[in-house]
Formats: sequence, structure tokens, C-alpha cells
Amino acid sequence: MNLKYSVFLGNVGHCFDRYCPEYSTPFSLEELFTRAVSIPQLSAVDLVMDWGMMEKREEIKAHLARTGLAVGSLAVDTFANPLYKKGSLSSTDKAVRDRALADCKAVMDFAAEIDCKIVTLWPGQDGYDYIFAADYIKERQLFADGVAELCRYNPNIIITLEYKIKEPRTHSYISTVGATLLMIEKINLPNLGIALDYGHAALGYETAAEAVAMCKMYGDRLKHIHINDNYRLWDDDMIVGTVHSLEYLEFFYWLKRTGYEGYLVIDQFPYREDGRDAVAESAEWLDALIALTEKIDANEAEAVIAKRDGVAASKFMRKILFKG
Amino acid sequence: MNLKYSVFLGNVGHCFDRYCPEYSTPFSLEELFTRAVSIPQLSAVDLVMDWGMMEKREEIKAHLARTGLAVGSLAVDTFANPLYKKGSLSSTDKAVRDRALADCKAVMDFAAEIDCKIVTLWPGQDGYDYIFAADYIKERQLFADGVAELCRYNPNIIITLEYKIKEPRTHSYISTVGATLLMIEKINLPNLGIALDYGHAALGYETAAEAVAMCKMYGDRLKHIHINDNYRLWDDDMIVGTVHSLEYLEFFYWLKRTGYEGYLVIDQFPYREDGRDAVAESAEWLDALIALTEKIDANEAEAVIAKRDGVAASKFMRKILFKG
Amino acid sequence: MNLKYSVFLGNVGHCFDRYCPEYSTPFSLEELFTRAVSIPQLSAVDLVMDWGMMEKREEIKAHLARTGLAVGSLAVDTFANPLYKKGSLSSTDKAVRDRALADCKAVMDFAAEIDCKIVTLWPGQDGYDYIFAADYIKERQLFADGVAELCRYNPNIIITLEYKIKEPRTHSYISTVGATLLMIEKINLPNLGIALDYGHAALGYETAAEAVAMCKMYGDRLKHIHINDNYRLWDDDMIVGTVHSLEYLEFFYWLKRTGYEGYLVIDQFPYREDGRDAVAESAEWLDALIALTEKIDANEAEAVIAKRDGVAASKFMRKILFKG
Amino acid sequence: MNLKYSVFLGNVGHCFDRYCPEYSTPFSLEELFTRAVSIPQLSAVDLVMDWGMMEKREEIKAHLARTGLAVGSLAVDTFANPLYKKGSLSSTDKAVRDRALADCKAVMDFAAEIDCKIVTLWPGQDGYDYIFAADYIKERQLFADGVAELCRYNPNIIITLEYKIKEPRTHSYISTVGATLLMIEKINLPNLGIALDYGHAALGYETAAEAVAMCKMYGDRLKHIHINDNYRLWDDDMIVGTVHSLEYLEFFYWLKRTGYEGYLVIDQFPYREDGRDAVAESAEWLDALIALTEKIDANEAEAVIAKRDGVAASKFMRKILFKG
Repeated sequence: MNLKYSVFLGNVGHCFDRYCPEYSTPFSLEELFTRAVSIPQLSAVDLVMDWGMMEKREEIKAHLARTGLAVGSLAVDTFANPLYKKGSLSSTDKAVRDRALADCKAVMDFAAEIDCKIVTLWPGQDGYDYIFAADYIKERQLFADGVAELCRYNPNIIITLEYKIKEPRTHSYISTVGATLLMIEKINLPNLGIALDYGHAALGYETAAEAVAMCKMYGDRLKHIHINDNYRLWDDDMIVGTVHSLEYLEFFYWLKRTGYEGYLVIDQFPYREDGRDAVAESAEWLDALIALTEKIDANEAEAVIAKRDGVAASKFMRKILFKG
Repeated sequence: MNLKYSVFLGNVGHCFDRYCPEYSTPFSLEELFTRAVSIPQLSAVDLVMDWGMMEKREEIKAHLARTGLAVGSLAVDTFANPLYKKGSLSSTDKAVRDRALADCKAVMDFAAEIDCKIVTLWPGQDGYDYIFAADYIKERQLFADGVAELCRYNPNIIITLEYKIKEPRTHSYISTVGATLLMIEKINLPNLGIALDYGHAALGYETAAEAVAMCKMYGDRLKHIHINDNYRLWDDDMIVGTVHSLEYLEFFYWLKRTGYEGYLVIDQFPYREDGRDAVAESAEWLDALIALTEKIDANEAEAVIAKRDGVAASKFMRKILFKG
Repeated sequence: MNLKYSVFLGNVGHCFDRYCPEYSTPFSLEELFTRAVSIPQLSAVDLVMDWGMMEKREEIKAHLARTGLAVGSLAVDTFANPLYKKGSLSSTDKAVRDRALADCKAVMDFAAEIDCKIVTLWPGQDGYDYIFAADYIKERQLFADGVAELCRYNPNIIITLEYKIKEPRTHSYISTVGATLLMIEKINLPNLGIALDYGHAALGYETAAEAVAMCKMYGDRLKHIHINDNYRLWDDDMIVGTVHSLEYLEFFYWLKRTGYEGYLVIDQFPYREDGRDAVAESAEWLDALIALTEKIDANEAEAVIAKRDGVAASKFMRKILFKG
Repeated sequence: MNLKYSVFLGNVGHCFDRYCPEYSTPFSLEELFTRAVSIPQLSAVDLVMDWGMMEKREEIKAHLARTGLAVGSLAVDTFANPLYKKGSLSSTDKAVRDRALADCKAVMDFAAEIDCKIVTLWPGQDGYDYIFAADYIKERQLFADGVAELCRYNPNIIITLEYKIKEPRTHSYISTVGATLLMIEKINLPNLGIALDYGHAALGYETAAEAVAMCKMYGDRLKHIHINDNYRLWDDDMIVGTVHSLEYLEFFYWLKRTGYEGYLVIDQFPYREDGRDAVAESAEWLDALIALTEKIDANEAEAVIAKRDGVAASKFMRKILFKG
């Protein structure tokens, strides 16, 4: 398997949540890059391009040059800017929508400039909290129209949509793998795909391997992967592998089976841990889990899968885990 | 709103679950029909056509004639027959799949015979329980191919797919409104639609009104509705309105807004209640909730929705509920 | 029913979450008090006494005098201060634990000074995120010991424990009504009780009315109530009544039945709404829901409850809701 | 660790659920015993003593003698008998309650006769489905009174309460580890304990190791363990180890740390698998997981736990899992 590891740059830094405005001391951009590059498995960083970051484009390029890190993807900030608190591309306020489009295009331009192939949209604020407070048809269509406009703006950049069933809104429009692939199917442009977040899949009661399979069968749309762990009921954004084990193995097996060859972007919220060390741990887990996956004999695996039997699957999983 | 009420015939009878094989004494087919017709709001019944019922087709016709009840939809039994315990149309065993197709076609034939326009597929066994025990691509494709074959078998019958995220399998293929509409979009036949179960939507963390909206915008695919209530974490199949209130009002509002004019099929499991009385209660709730919905001023509602504001939505909901 | 309304002062202000550091402009303390007192139903505020607030004690007293608002309860900040990020009273670091005790006692002193009877502990950081990262026995005992010390520090102040199954930790020690009453039972001091948050009960799959009943039967321990609404899977902290309806009625009925005569503290996170208006909405809902509850004939209700029958309960709920 | 394996005898047989009355052909009692004893790790069976089984007491004794299997525990059927559909020991109908007490005492007598030390109560029907349909105080007290009467009936038999947050009722009285320990604390009799079902703990968002810890600290009440696996949102009753891995290791570690030396009773619902083979798989997983746990160096583990740090816990878990 040809998988590269990246990390959201901020992950090696500090966190806040809705109660505590600062769990630990912030780091400078220079420190964040230095901390990221100290993790040997990482070959890239993913960057959330909010306004502050857009103003630091030259500094970013210098840090990339200094560290030798590539950029896995640029993510547009359509979730932290309060301007988008009631939606970005789905906003019924044309001024907000136009601004969101402009922000996205500016990030696409920077991506082109630094030879980054992927721009990620995580439309966390595009959704609703209360009933009787959204025109589900109109807003979903506005979002799709915006995405199409972005895809056409630069066909050399792949736009990836990152779905999540909820949070920060109680309900998101880009919610599940099915709903997202359906929108992509209707937009029907080649440079549009999915950024699958393992934790978001688990939160939505999806089997991550099945989500990979659906992306494959409905247009080969899996283009980027975020990775972290959780207890399945919330996007806990924990160190990879500290909760789930076997489901990761099936996930990696299906990544191999479907020919995914892109990034695994570590994306976690180490509120109480050292951010750099928490990312390093995830990289170690990824190495170990992928090594186990690589040992799987494909013929044997396919024979087990074809049996569609819990006992056979159980035996197989025991064998992978304990006799790897 | 032009909505008709139906009920799954067995709902006026008795139940069992995985612990208790018989919560109360069973009723004969004649008794079930008599109990159903005693509920004045019902104009139809929905029938699960298992093998036993298929053998009683003449008796069923007699009961329909006697009671004057129409048939809302015929549901094919692809979930109670142990033959299908590992899947029906998605089975990788061709013999099982062929039998499932034959069962479905036989039910479609009976539907045509009794002038019932809709045949419902609830593929409860088409999914998986364990990881490494399913070929997610192949099985999903087999299911879609089977559905297409059925649609083509008789274009005058509408095939509706009833999605549910889990149970009896821990994971279903026909899982969410998005995944189901996506499959329908790819099959692309006019006589294919969705049977939306209100409780299944709630179980999958869907807002039922949004599911209605999505069915409308992606091909006008909402063709049948099952209705019941639950606590959102399991398909409790309770009396309509005993848990949720406001979400039903939004649901009915969106049914009206999108022009749905079909059946509301009461579909519940009154393990410990009298089945007939539990259905009668649901009919009373439906009357009351729909009457409240009918009093909503559409201009006012649209103005509130357009505000996309929790406070405005809250005021509006208070007004509907208390000053209806 | 003799229920008084309070609000967490910050609720009429602005919010942040783990993505967006500032959804709207902050308000001064003076503005917050002025906004709170503009809501006619409120007779009190609840205050989170973090360090900044402790330094403003004189200013707070002046605002209380100016507005005529009472203080429902003082809450100690053991959750926003990063010092407590791995626990406060349960911390295995004696210096942290001592500081937490000192902070609590200082707040108890201020409560005594302003004639506030209740001090609330919401031990949001006392728990764990990862397995193999907590000594569940030792830390729980340290927490209980700290609570006992606080109760003994001033027997005229009631210490209330606010339970919540998770967040900000993935797992809290003070998690459910049962676990909390058990700790209280073992500590066995008269000035110790529960602050029941309606939304936390719902999040933990508790029926709020049953939680009230358990507090009554195990020592009459219900001393304070926080109120808000959610979709049952997360502490969404929404406007009261915008999701649930009937469960609030049962909750208020059981408050009356068990003789609760304290505060209902509005406690919500209006990220995208005007905070003051969102609180005013909750007050209106409370008025309407409590008025409905007051119309319930107790003899009739008790007769229905005694039937233990879903159909009878359903009829009764329809009657309350639609014929109030 | 001195742990013995048992199995619910029916688990090596066949299953039904609320849709399918018979997933496969039933087995005779003789066949069930023969199938159980064919699994070498099992030294005992647990038996659900419904009326049919009570009539076969002599036959059971013969099978026990024949197979050499011990009885881990006898469980009273208070959940499959429709007489108890609205509750057994908590029933407000004295005739039902008396019958439940009589059934329990008869099972206790049989336990004494066959030298089985533990009788398990899983009060699956003691709870409620709808609001306004239960007197939460009275029914909980009736249940506790019944349990106390049973404990006093034969002080040489340990009565264990098996908690579960829901199913078959939407809400159970004996719901969480905290609520159950609280009831036990109030009853305060020495021969009363908890039967901890791993899957029920997971379903209630409990960390199983923490539940073990709480049982230890509040009276050393852990007396019996049921084991199976699930996806955390429902009691899926799957083969042990097919979903969770690391949490089992922490669970076994805490069993060792707290000195549990009793049975692990395999308790699953192999709807679509061969029951005997599914149980054999669970026994294999238990062997493997317990062997891993036995390799844990206690000093190292305690040092990691004392750090209360996610990164340290993660490193430790990787070490256990991959370098055993």
C-alpha cells in the first residue's frame, strides 16, 4: 500500500473547547512546523486556511521549504469564521455565499501556487440546529451549486467534501457517505470527491470499510482521508487505535483492495496531551496497523469475506490480530 | 392534505421478541381484519406477504371485500423467512437470490390482481453483522440489480425501498435516506421510490422533514410512509406521538409542502398493549397532529423558515403547539 | 408549584466552541446583568465563579442590588481553568486538589456572604478520556473525600453535584443519577444534594421524571435544576421545549409530586442566536409547559400511572397536550 | 487469574428475534449439553430456569452428571414468561409479584440442591416503555423488597442482579452499575451482588473496567460476569472480541487487580451462525485476550495508570497489543 501520512498542522499545537478557552499555551507557526517535522513518519501537513493563514502565505512557503514537508490538502475555513456561523456555501444570504466562494477560490489559487492537488471543504456550519429553521431543499441546492462552481473554477484542483453527521450544528447537510455521494453524483464533475474522516464515519454508525467501498463503486470518489479514533457516539478525535483495532484493519484492507493511494491525515484534538506526542503516537499506531494489514493474504481474506459468516470472520480476525 | 391511514395488519394482533415467543394470544386472519376495520380512521391495510399469507390470497380478498378496506401496499417477506437470514436480493447465493426475486414477483402479481399500486421491500436481512464478512460492493450491486429487475417486471407497480440503519442485522445496506436515494438515482427507473419509516429516520439521526425534502429534490421519490414513534436510539415502534410532538408537525408540514398524497401506514410493535387499541391511539394522534399542521399559515411558516433562526423557530413552535 | 426561574448569567451573552473562538461579540458584566433582568420571569441568576468573577465580587454585589436579582446558586469553576484539565477534587496531584478545595471554599464563603444557599459543583474535568489512564477507585474516592470536606466546611451551604455522562471528558466520574446518589449515600451528609440538568439526564438515556423520583426516594437529594433541551445524543443545550414536549410535562408533574420547590436554572449555549432572546424563549416555554402541568388532575394522573399501560398513558398525554 | 468459562446453554442452540420466529432448527436438551461439552474450555453451563426447564430438573441433573459440567449460575425466567410482561418483582399486581417470588425461590431451591452458589436475576421486564405509565418510586421499592426477601430466603445462595439500561423495555429499573449498586447498598445484605454483562456495560456507555472498579469499592459486589460483544449502541450479543479489543484487556486487568475469581459466562445470540461454533470462537478469544492480560507487568501498568496521560496509555496499549 502506498499511503502517505500528513497531519493537520494545528494538531501538534494546543486546543480549546466550549468550556475552556485554552488548555495549554499556543505555539507559533514556526514552532508548529518544527514540531510536525520532528515526527519522522510525516511527509506532509494539511493546513486550515483561515484569514490569518492566508496572510501568512509567504511564511508558510518558507516553512514548507525549510522542513521539506509537502501539503496534503488545503482546507478552507468555512467553520471557524463567525461570518459563516449559519452556513457558508449553503447560506441563503448571497453576500455570505459570495464571500464563501471567494474564500474557497483564494485557497484554490494558493493550492495551485504551491502544487497542492486537493482542497478540502468541511462544511461544519452548513446545516441547522432547530427544526422549522431551514429550507432543506433550497440550502442543499445552493451548496451543491457552489461546489460545482468551485470545481469548474479550476479543474486541476480536486475538491473534496468531508461529511459529518453533526457538530458544530446539531445536523449537517453533508452528513453521511450516502448523502454526499448522491450530491456528487448529481453534480457529476470529475474533480469532485470525498474526504473520508474515519471518526466521522464511526460517529454516523458507518463501517469505515463499507464507506470506502461505496466511494469506490459510486464513481471512485475517495480522494483524501482523515484519521483519528472515538467511542462511536461523538467525534472524540482521539489518538488512532486507542479505541478501535479490528475495524481499522478492515478499513486498511479495503483501502488496499480499492486501490486508494493518497494521504492519511492525522486529525485529532489532544486537549490534555502534548499535541506533538499524540500525533507521533497515531503515526506509530498507523505503522503497526498497516503492517498487520499488509500481512493479510488477499486470497484468504477474499475467501473469508465470501463466506459471509460470523464464525469464519471471527477466526480470521483472531488470526490477523494474534498471529499477524 | 390528502393523507390516508393504513396499518400493518399484524399490528392489531400480537407480538413476540427475542426473549418472549408470545406476549399474548394470536388472532386469526378474520379477527385481524375485523379488529382493523373497527378503527374508523383506517381506510386500508398493509400486508406482509409471507408464504402463509400467499396461500390465503382468496381469503384475503374476501376479507377486503367484507371490510371495504383497501390495500395500501403489499410488503414482501424477505426478513422473517429464515431462507433469507443472510440476505435476499443481495445474497451471493444465486439460488437464494432467485427465490427472493420469485417471491417478489409473486407478490407483485398479487398486487396487480387486487389493484394495489405499491409493493414494499424492507430488506432487513440484507446487510451484515460482523466485519470481514461481506463484500460491500458486490452485494450492494446484486441488490440493485434485483431491484431493477423487479421494476422492469411490471412498470405499473411502484417498488418502494424502506431503509433502516440496522436491525435485524447490525448494519443494513439500505441504511439511510442518502444511500437509498443514491441507489435509486443509479437504477434510474420511474417506478422506484422510497417507503419512509418515520421511526427509522429518527433512529438514523435524520430529521424526518429533511428526509422528505431530500426525497423530493432527488427525483420526487417519496411514495409510501410508515409511522410510529421511538426514543431515537432504537426502532421502539411505539404509538405515534407518545415521544415526539414538534418534529411530527414539521414532518407533516413538509409532506404538505412537497405534495405528498399517499398513505400513512401505522407500523408499531405493541408488545404489552392491546394491539387494536394501540393502533387506534396512533390514529387519534395523527388526526390531532395533522389538524394542528393544517392550521399553520404557510406564508408565516415560510417566513420563519427563511429566517434560519432558533429564536424565531422556537416562537413559531410555541405558537403552533399552544395556540394552534 | 412554587418554582423560581434563574439563568446562568453568561447565557444571555455570547458563546464559543472548539472550532470557533467567538460566535459573537462579548458583553460586559454590567450588560449581562441588564440583559438578564430584562426578562420578566427571571428572579435570579446563577454565576460561574471563575477567578475573574471572584475578583469582581463587589461589582457583582452592586449589580445584584441594582437589578434586584437573587443568586440561585454559585457554581465553582472547576472546568474552564486549565489547571483542572485532568481533574479537580479527583486529581491525584495533591497541589491541584488542594487548590480545588480552596477555590470551592472561597466560593462557599462568597455564597454565605451574599446569602446564597447553594453551591454547585459540576466536575466536568473529573473523569478520563483514554482507558489505562485512570485509577477508577482512587480518583473516585478522592473526589468523594473532597466533597465531604466541603460539606463539613460550612453546613449551612448545600453542595449540589451536577452529573453528566460525558463532555468535556469522554467519561465523567459523576456520570448518572444512580452513581451520584450512591456517592451521596456513602458520604451521608445532610447538606449534600444533586443539581439535576434536564439535558444531562436526557443525554444519559434517563427519563428526567424517573431521575427526580430516584432523588426523592434515596434521601430527598434534589436541590437544584438546570434546564435546556437536546436531541438526546449530545448536550446540545438548546432552548427549552424546542425538541421535547411530553417528557417535560411528566418531569414537572414529578417535581410537583415530590415537592420540589427550588430553582429552574436556564442553562443553554445559544451559539448562533441572540443569547438574551434565547433565554426569554425558554422562560416562555417554561411558563406554558408548567401551566399545562398545573392543569393536570392529580387523581386522574395517578390512576393512569397505576394502570402501567401504554394505551392509557397515550390517551392521557393526548388529553393534556391538546385539551390542556 | 483464576477464571472459569461457562455458557448459557441455549447459546449453543438456535435463536429467534422479533421478526423471524426461528432462524434455524431447535436442539433437544440432550443435544445442547452435548454441544456445550464439546467446547474444551467450558467447565460449566448457566441455565435459564423457565417452567419447561423446572419440569426437567431430573433430566438436567443427569446431563450434568453425564457431561461433568458444573452450573455457573441458575437464572430465573422473569423475562420470557408473558405473565411478567409488565414486570416481575416490581409488579404492582401482588399476584404477579408473589408468583415471581415463588418462581425465584423454586430456582434457589434447585440451586441449593445441585450445589450451585449463584442465582441470577435479570429483570428485563421490570421497567417501562411509555412515560406516565410507571410509579418510579413504588415499583423500584417493590423490586428492592422482593430482592431482600429472596436474599433472606437462603443466605447461602448469592443473588446477583444483572443490569441493562434497556430492552426488552425501553427503560429498565436495574439500569446502570451505579443505580444497581445503590439499590444493593440500601438493601445491605451480604449475599447480594452484581452479574456484570460486558455488553450491557458497553451499551450504557460504561467502561467495563470502571464498572468492575465501582463494584469493588462499593461493597465488593461483583459476583458473576456475562460476556459478549457489541457495537456499543445495542446489545448485539456478538462473539467476544469481534468488535472490541483493548477494552477487554483493561477489563481483564481490572478483574485481576480487584481479585475477581468467578465465571465468565458466554452470553450471545448467534442468529445466523452455528451456535456451538460461535461459542467456541468466544472461548478462543477469551483465551487469547486473557493470555495477553496475564503478560502485563503490574508495576508497569500501575505506573502508566498513575500518569493519567493519553499518550502514555496509548504507548502502553500498543505495547500490549503488538508486543504482548
